[in-house]
Amino acid sequence: MNNQPRKKLGNNIRKLRIQQGLSQEQLAEKADLHRTYIGAIERGERNVSLDNIVAIAHALGVSASQLLDGVD
Amino acid sequence: MNNQPRKKLGNNIRKLRIQQGLSQEQLAEKADLHRTYIGAIERGERNVSLDNIVAIAHALGVSASQLLDGVD
Repeated sequence: MNNQPRKKLGNNIRKLRIQQGLSQEQLAEKADLHRTYIGAIERGERNVSLDNIVAIAHALGVSASQLLDGVD
Repeated sequence: MNNQPRKKLGNNIRKLRIQQGLSQEQLAEKADLHRTYIGAIERGERNVSLDNIVAIAHALGVSASQLLDGVD
């Protein structure tokens, strides 16, 4: 399985989170997800579902489409 | 759970598939997924994973980001 999409999504999330000065804990709280899950997603270790992509996008104030920028 | 994102993704996929003159079966074959799964996704009944979003996007010749256009 090509992990490139998972890694790229993880990088997109980490970059946006850091730009906004949020910790993984704060992002997790905003997205109503567990902190360890956010960490695993950022490391490209999770095959994230649509609902969670949308929840994280909302928490970061971007669209789900923006969050998947460059994910291919 | 807000099903709007799932329904919008399903509509995006159906619209692109029909524009390209593909049946659900042909799209499923190209994306290496089951036809009934494609049908359920198009009806907004599935919380699709990132890997499958990317597989369907590739099969339709668009980016994953384009596939999630307007999904919020």
